[in-house]
Amino acid sequence: MTYFVLCIHNHQPVGNFYHVIEECFEKAYWPFLKTISRYPSIKLTLHNTGFLLDWLIENRPEYIDLLKTMVEAGQVELMGGGYYEPILSVIPEVDRLNQIKMMSDRIFEVFGTRPKGIWLAERVWEPALPTTLKKAGVEYLLLDDYHFVKSGLDREELGGYYITEDQGKIIKVFPGSEMLRYLIPFRPVEHLEEHLKGLAGFLRLGNAAIYGDDGEKFGSWPGTHKWVYDEGWLEAFFKMIEKNLSWLRPVTMSEFAGGEEHLGRVYLPTTSYMEMGEWALPATASRTYTELVEEMKSWNDGPRIRRFLQGGIWRNFFSKYPEANWMHKRMLLVSKALNERMERTVLVDNITKARKCLFMAQSNDAYWHGIFGGLYLPHLRRSVYENLIKAENLMDSESFANTPADEPAVSVIKGDFDADNNEEIAIRTRDLNLFLSPRRGGSIVEWDFRPAAVNLSNTVSRWYEGYHNKLESVAGEEGRGEAKSIHEMVKVKEKGLEKYLKYDKFQRTSLLDHFLGGEESLKAFFANDHKELGDFHTGEYKNEVKDGVVELCREGKVNGKGVSLKKWISMDGDNSFRIDYSIAPLEKGVFPEECRFGVELNVILPGCDGPLCYYELVPNSVGAVDTGLGTSVEANEVEKISLVDKFSGVILTIGVDRPATLWSFPIYTVSLSEGGFEKIYQGSCLLFLFPLAGAEKRKHGIDIGFTVKCESIEGVK
Amino acid sequence: MTYFVLCIHNHQPVGNFYHVIEECFEKAYWPFLKTISRYPSIKLTLHNTGFLLDWLIENRPEYIDLLKTMVEAGQVELMGGGYYEPILSVIPEVDRLNQIKMMSDRIFEVFGTRPKGIWLAERVWEPALPTTLKKAGVEYLLLDDYHFVKSGLDREELGGYYITEDQGKIIKVFPGSEMLRYLIPFRPVEHLEEHLKGLAGFLRLGNAAIYGDDGEKFGSWPGTHKWVYDEGWLEAFFKMIEKNLSWLRPVTMSEFAGGEEHLGRVYLPTTSYMEMGEWALPATASRTYTELVEEMKSWNDGPRIRRFLQGGIWRNFFSKYPEANWMHKRMLLVSKALNERMERTVLVDNITKARKCLFMAQSNDAYWHGIFGGLYLPHLRRSVYENLIKAENLMDSESFANTPADEPAVSVIKGDFDADNNEEIAIRTRDLNLFLSPRRGGSIVEWDFRPAAVNLSNTVSRWYEGYHNKLESVAGEEGRGEAKSIHEMVKVKEKGLEKYLKYDKFQRTSLLDHFLGGEESLKAFFANDHKELGDFHTGEYKNEVKDGVVELCREGKVNGKGVSLKKWISMDGDNSFRIDYSIAPLEKGVFPEECRFGVELNVILPGCDGPLCYYELVPNSVGAVDTGLGTSVEANEVEKISLVDKFSGVILTIGVDRPATLWSFPIYTVSLSEGGFEKIYQGSCLLFLFPLAGAEKRKHGIDIGFTVKCESIEGVK
Repeated sequence: MTYFVLCIHNHQPVGNFYHVIEECFEKAYWPFLKTISRYPSIKLTLHNTGFLLDWLIENRPEYIDLLKTMVEAGQVELMGGGYYEPILSVIPEVDRLNQIKMMSDRIFEVFGTRPKGIWLAERVWEPALPTTLKKAGVEYLLLDDYHFVKSGLDREELGGYYITEDQGKIIKVFPGSEMLRYLIPFRPVEHLEEHLKGLAGFLRLGNAAIYGDDGEKFGSWPGTHKWVYDEGWLEAFFKMIEKNLSWLRPVTMSEFAGGEEHLGRVYLPTTSYMEMGEWALPATASRTYTELVEEMKSWNDGPRIRRFLQGGIWRNFFSKYPEANWMHKRMLLVSKALNERMERTVLVDNITKARKCLFMAQSNDAYWHGIFGGLYLPHLRRSVYENLIKAENLMDSESFANTPADEPAVSVIKGDFDADNNEEIAIRTRDLNLFLSPRRGGSIVEWDFRPAAVNLSNTVSRWYEGYHNKLESVAGEEGRGEAKSIHEMVKVKEKGLEKYLKYDKFQRTSLLDHFLGGEESLKAFFANDHKELGDFHTGEYKNEVKDGVVELCREGKVNGKGVSLKKWISMDGDNSFRIDYSIAPLEKGVFPEECRFGVELNVILPGCDGPLCYYELVPNSVGAVDTGLGTSVEANEVEKISLVDKFSGVILTIGVDRPATLWSFPIYTVSLSEGGFEKIYQGSCLLFLFPLAGAEKRKHGIDIGFTVKCESIEGVK
Repeated sequence: MTYFVLCIHNHQPVGNFYHVIEECFEKAYWPFLKTISRYPSIKLTLHNTGFLLDWLIENRPEYIDLLKTMVEAGQVELMGGGYYEPILSVIPEVDRLNQIKMMSDRIFEVFGTRPKGIWLAERVWEPALPTTLKKAGVEYLLLDDYHFVKSGLDREELGGYYITEDQGKIIKVFPGSEMLRYLIPFRPVEHLEEHLKGLAGFLRLGNAAIYGDDGEKFGSWPGTHKWVYDEGWLEAFFKMIEKNLSWLRPVTMSEFAGGEEHLGRVYLPTTSYMEMGEWALPATASRTYTELVEEMKSWNDGPRIRRFLQGGIWRNFFSKYPEANWMHKRMLLVSKALNERMERTVLVDNITKARKCLFMAQSNDAYWHGIFGGLYLPHLRRSVYENLIKAENLMDSESFANTPADEPAVSVIKGDFDADNNEEIAIRTRDLNLFLSPRRGGSIVEWDFRPAAVNLSNTVSRWYEGYHNKLESVAGEEGRGEAKSIHEMVKVKEKGLEKYLKYDKFQRTSLLDHFLGGEESLKAFFANDHKELGDFHTGEYKNEVKDGVVELCREGKVNGKGVSLKKWISMDGDNSFRIDYSIAPLEKGVFPEECRFGVELNVILPGCDGPLCYYELVPNSVGAVDTGLGTSVEANEVEKISLVDKFSGVILTIGVDRPATLWSFPIYTVSLSEGGFEKIYQGSCLLFLFPLAGAEKRKHGIDIGFTVKCESIEGVK
């Protein structure tokens, strides 16, 4: 007797577009469920993540009805998990417990049953997890056989589940078969049948074929709908199982874990599936590793080496992308505030709502990047910030309840908010949050307009990716769409993407201070080919907070000579603030002829580069500049610029006390998605330039002032 | 300027022999400290683990005095850690915090300063540790560069410390250089000087040479005393540094971490130094891995592959050695009881003492095995159990305070004590603890005599080790001492060890029930060449507890036919108990002619195989049996056997209701130690045999009874 465990995981990230979910439903989730429902002997263990489950309940009651019947009939076992599919190990334990409980409660409410197992998001395992999982009442979970192989087990020993534990708290762990993931649903059913028939002879321990994978592979991945349904793969698969019921017994995971004993004790390393290890490494190491794994496929020694190979761990994404780290630490900040509040108070309505927002912000997809968009997708990141800001708004609505609405409330707090061992400064009003990093050029790393729940500085810089070389290798080739590289097919969504491979040397935050020579151009600045004369844009600023005003100052160098730069950020009501600069040379002959001072801002509005999002310049004299890429503009004598986003209903207006030259260009990243390489708009760089000629003659150097205002557009949203 | 960080870790496991510690002191710790004290410009960061520190304070005040002067002068920075050097991730968090605090308090008490950093025992890192460490006030720790390389960093990027975090709690982590560990103190000082000089050009990030390693390498490791002191390596080393002070600046770790900024953010996988990964793998995988690493040294692709190679994680020792797992889970049991007690009560004297015992039992050395003895050393394991039993005795002295001493107190508790997903049964009296595993043949897995704080079943079975093949490869060669294998020198402490490579198929616990054919011999049983007719010795027993009596029963098979076996364990006063067997065939013709029933016990007394430990048989008729190895005995018509241990003052007496044949032989394991391969006595197997002839004719089969008594020898200890 060989047991067959079929476990399917359907997932939609929080913030995903309705039409994408709808398409996945029509092409995969729904036809899959309908088909398997006609084969009642085929047992299924099914996981729908919370955001998707809510969508199904609201929009596709017929799916829920059918599923309910199947659950009641015992054909389907429902699996739990963190409600919004967070990476469990990087969220606070109290949130882990509550997210798992929330999912269990929801399943109980809808289906009248409680899950015993969980799907571990992205199979990101850490050895200390069992303690939390046991507290949450979890009995089992599914990982990859890769995890077990990394612990020195042979695949022949993986015909069942093992136990692992932390501090004596046991969890049952199932090794999902990599071989089955290659066969299902990608190979002819006969191959699968042959494999299953051979399993009894192959396995030294246990008697089960364990398959667990994403439901999107059954119809939603490119090309799979035709193969799985139109060409009948899925029916053939189920018929094959039915034909072999004499020796092949489909079971749910609970049935198996309840009826069969564990195969032993195992301790799994901090890892996920093999590919995640490639993605989590720093870009250069990732490239080396990926190439090695690829190359080894043709080596005799390949398999013997491969079982001991391991890439980076998931947490490394916080090191790889400062944007992911900030988002994560910002989430921790909200979680801390919320959980402290929850300890002090009963679960009033707003706090419950705030907690739901926090949990939605913990949805993993926006925090990392592999071969799907992930972190590179602005709408996923926006969803994270939107939920975090909403959670804070809900919490503050409590605190502000007794404060008069016409009284401006400014709070300035210092703390190492992003866990970089340096203090940041948080300025908060009812309408704005500004997070300043003195260490990183005294710049703004987060800039929230709270009424719209938007983080205007939610950009991603142009980082080098280990896979970029694949794009370069096809640059010379003709045609749009598919192109061959040495090792594999490389898909590109549009031609010429390799030209967009410009790299940033530091994160594009706002209020970065540059000193540029007269020969510099927008084009050079865009391409990072320019020369920085000063050390302010990456330097450390001293800071002082007085009466709600933040003073940032640095005595740095320009052309190797001393310059003092001070900037003050002062709130001006709830929704606007001023930035005042004072720049003074400390030595003679600091500034070369035609030297300019530049203040760089990088912003992204929710409408992104869509038709509802545009500039308004005062005065309106714009010169288009050909950077070769995108619509960059150069404008002189600018007094004011408004960024209008009719999509989200936000206007950001930046006024300058003295006319400035403005260089503006879009930031495009080039990244991998399931459809191939694509460029994505990550925000706009605005560089305000001021001549420094004559600055040395004046007593106190030169002064520059900005007025910044964020407003809602009436009637939008 | 290149900074030089010199960090030394001196460690002695709890339970180590006084003479061993003394020798390490004379050969390494003392001469090292005296030598470096004469070079005040050479800064040192020093860690002495708690057991050693206590020994030094008590026995070598001159060391403490000198160290105090050096600390006060700022030459030495003291490092903390878990007091008795536990593997932090596998002990409860409250114990982690208290062990680190206990060390900090002790250092403050003796030296008037508090440590800022810790030495992480065996550098066993897990990504969730920073949360605990931050709570404990730890600012930094030292790991190997291997940890960092595994996260995708290049060695050129390791010229300083990084920050890592969990849940936003930051810790500074130093990458100790593998290259320096090879150079210091094993290579000529000129090589080291050359390396240090080249470092500034080699490093892309940072400017420090970071060395951290065991202090025993400076004089206590074989051959090192002569080289390091007599031949002047250490003086030459310090002189070299002094000569180069213009560009080479020795700093303590705190000085460096305080003065220099971190190099970035890093997330390290669950790992230790590279070799630990080899050791922690299951034996077969360990061999494959070790051979691969060795072989790769000559490959062109070697270095490129090596950086991505990873073995098993430390926790895997609990899977590799059931003895380690039991010891660990037993420790957790005591910790749980103690910490629950501490929450309820003020820290009365006995509880404080009990906690100290618990912490001593957490000393890591006995729980694992690499190339030092570790788990294979009976005196280290004994120390663990001694401390656990003492801790329980101290806790019980409170509970028993109001119970009359002449009233026998028996408690029977069920629970999954060893986290194997099966229930065990704990029987406790004032004098005894018996832990029974119904799942594992209804056998006794722990058997404590509490007055002597001895676990009589503290054996280790003869497991296959991945390195055993190295021994076999030199079997044919002549001579005692050194012999060459293909890849390396293999040292053996005595000749003919390969003959001792007999392997056990299951753990040698007590009350294992065998059915053996008439042709079986002690020699075959010893070598595991015999045939088991029954399935009881590894089978699962049902159990029931009535009036303090534990009934274990199983309907199993002998020769494929049904047999019912029942055994009852009943306490008979505080220090003795009875075992009653009832064996009945369920079918005809079950037992072949001359078939025998055997009850196997495996015991070890603290005196081990020393001269103070011996048998007394009644009646005294012993026949020596040549197993080819050790002094095995075969005795007939045995009514009683006493195991006398005048070393610990314990007598164990086993009486049989009906005369039995006794097969007894020593269990020798063969393992690696720093001195080479050695065999170690791990206890004695006692097999009591009873003929089953005629058993089928009797109505209820046959009944067998044992009386077991543990006593203290008056006047000993």
